[in-house]
Amino acid sequence: MRIGIADTMFAQVDMAKVALETIGEIHQTERYTVPGFKDLPVACKILIEKHNCDIVIAFGWVGNTNLDEMCAHEANTGLISVEIETSIHILKVFVHSQESEDPDTLRKITEDRARKHTLNAISLLKGKTELTPLAGQGQRQGGEHRGAL
Amino acid sequence: MRIGIADTMFAQVDMAKVALETIGEIHQTERYTVPGFKDLPVACKILIEKHNCDIVIAFGWVGNTNLDEMCAHEANTGLISVEIETSIHILKVFVHSQESEDPDTLRKITEDRARKHTLNAISLLKGKTELTPLAGQGQRQGGEHRGAL
Amino acid sequence: MRIGIADTMFAQVDMAKVALETIGEIHQTERYTVPGFKDLPVACKILIEKHNCDIVIAFGWVGNTNLDEMCAHEANTGLISVEIETSIHILKVFVHSQESEDPDTLRKITEDRARKHTLNAISLLKGKTELTPLAGQGQRQGGEHRGAL
Amino acid sequence: MRIGIADTMFAQVDMAKVALETIGEIHQTERYTVPGFKDLPVACKILIEKHNCDIVIAFGWVGNTNLDEMCAHEANTGLISVEIETSIHILKVFVHSQESEDPDTLRKITEDRARKHTLNAISLLKGKTELTPLAGQGQRQGGEHRGAL
Amino acid sequence: MRIGIADTMFAQVDMAKVALETIGEIHQTERYTVPGFKDLPVACKILIEKHNCDIVIAFGWVGNTNLDEMCAHEANTGLISVEIETSIHILKVFVHSQESEDPDTLRKITEDRARKHTLNAISLLKGKTELTPLAGQGQRQGGEHRGAL
Repeated sequence: MRIGIADTMFAQVDMAKVALETIGEIHQTERYTVPGFKDLPVACKILIEKHNCDIVIAFGWVGNTNLDEMCAHEANTGLISVEIETSIHILKVFVHSQESEDPDTLRKITEDRARKHTLNAISLLKGKTELTPLAGQGQRQGGEHRGAL
Repeated sequence: MRIGIADTMFAQVDMAKVALETIGEIHQTERYTVPGFKDLPVACKILIEKHNCDIVIAFGWVGNTNLDEMCAHEANTGLISVEIETSIHILKVFVHSQESEDPDTLRKITEDRARKHTLNAISLLKGKTELTPLAGQGQRQGGEHRGAL
Repeated sequence: MRIGIADTMFAQVDMAKVALETIGEIHQTERYTVPGFKDLPVACKILIEKHNCDIVIAFGWVGNTNLDEMCAHEANTGLISVEIETSIHILKVFVHSQESEDPDTLRKITEDRARKHTLNAISLLKGKTELTPLAGQGQRQGGEHRGAL
Repeated sequence: MRIGIADTMFAQVDMAKVALETIGEIHQTERYTVPGFKDLPVACKILIEKHNCDIVIAFGWVGNTNLDEMCAHEANTGLISVEIETSIHILKVFVHSQESEDPDTLRKITEDRARKHTLNAISLLKGKTELTPLAGQGQRQGGEHRGAL
Repeated sequence: MRIGIADTMFAQVDMAKVALETIGEIHQTERYTVPGFKDLPVACKILIEKHNCDIVIAFGWVGNTNLDEMCAHEANTGLISVEIETSIHILKVFVHSQESEDPDTLRKITEDRARKHTLNAISLLKGKTELTPLAGQGQRQGGEHRGAL
């Protein structure tokens, strides 16, 4: 199986590096680096269409203005459109810089989210009920799990 | 007939369990569990396209930040796109954690909504006027019916 | 000609009834009742695609929270997508419960809007310039006409 | 060449009249009048697809509530979708009634915008660099040009 | 390789000029000037489809009202749709006039962003890992790079 990894120059943490370390030798990978997160949808489309990826992980980094949040919305809408068109999962791993003012905390959130979503991608490649044992369990990426109510 | 059930690890209540109990032996089911609700549109597309589901119930759980609400909007927009593309109903069963601060109340809302929308799915499979006797009657899922004005 | 009528159990007024009375024997009709207004786009698609409707009237009822307004936005976006895909008009007749706190006033607004938009649908079936004599005349459905400036 | 003109009964100024006077005998025209601006996308699709228009001018009039603004957003999103699908320009000429409280001023804004955008449509029909001499010059429709910084 | 350049009369800086100087003799170019930024999506579609551009740079200029921001959102959504449909990158180079009240500063931001994104376009034409050495490095267009955390 082949995992696509799309990332940006805009991000302030190299999330693709975390993904590549997590995947190791388990699957082949294809990387695509674009300027900013609004360039991710077409990059993912190309990874799926031309590079035959079976799943893609898209890493976005969102600045802290309202405009940044609107752009993140546009990027996510585009990524979901590509998923629907291709019937291929794209894990949308976005870190919003407003999640923490402390650079160390923000880097830890980022690395945790990148690692957990890479593991999710590997699970999704195994089949549609691979994650079912964790359904409704309040799982979180980038923070502590919440658990079931 | 076959009912698809798409749910998430992010949710804090196992809504698919309520749906499966409600459906019982009436119809076949196919389940697909994804990490979060933004992964639901492509999962529903796959349930329809590859697993031949005649209707799908998508269970989402929305956190209580503005960002969560925006993500819910993106997910719903994607789900509606899949419905339009496939001409298959997807019941969009979303619980917003801001609907109640009390965990017990929130769980009851969730279970009521999951059960009622599963019954709606079963009705929609019977034909386009199955629900007509209740048209304009202020029916609610997750709370008391409002009735006609 | 055949007019599709899509309505919901969520609404608190039976708008389809007003439409059916207004249409009378002029045209054939096909009705489709769904749970809530976010289910309208796919219902309209099915009315057009499988039931050969030449125009559709979609009746939606919007609750008074911000979340309801966002859902109405998603439904309208979906309805416009179906129109574009099929090249068939869907009259998007939405009543927002915040339009009046008084139930009687709200019911009158609703019935006026349902009736006027049904007449609009009948006019649109006659051709693209049938409504031209009223162009720029500040026509309103659910309230008094405003007139030209 | 054939110019499509889509307008509404909702508007309070007859913008299509301004357009028709501006076009005069230069090009053929096809007019399509719909109830409100959310009906414009499918009307423009039909003008392009069935009436072979080479460009379309869509005239919308937006009321002064938040809901009106959201509807304008939905209409514009739909119009852009039609442009992308057909590779035909649709000039989106929207007047927001909140642009002026004075009816006379609002009518002047409207007529200026309608006239200038009609001239833009005529220019676009001549080729993709017809407007290049004015690129970056702060041109405005419905108000004074701003000029380059 | 051929680079498409789409720009507007609405903008107050001639960004296409900066792009053309930066590209020089390296690649062929095709320019398309439209009235405002909401006209950019279809222009880019035409540049790709009819003028065989391998990448496009779209230059938009956003006024300082909420309505302008909403229009920018619509334009960006459309541009991303064209990218997905054609599998061709469109660099979305938008300047928001609210980024600075000082005309000189705003012009410098604009020229820096136009130049850097033109260089990004040239890099993307070389392949999907051309920008990978800068991944996660907090690169910015129109301002100082932020660097990695």
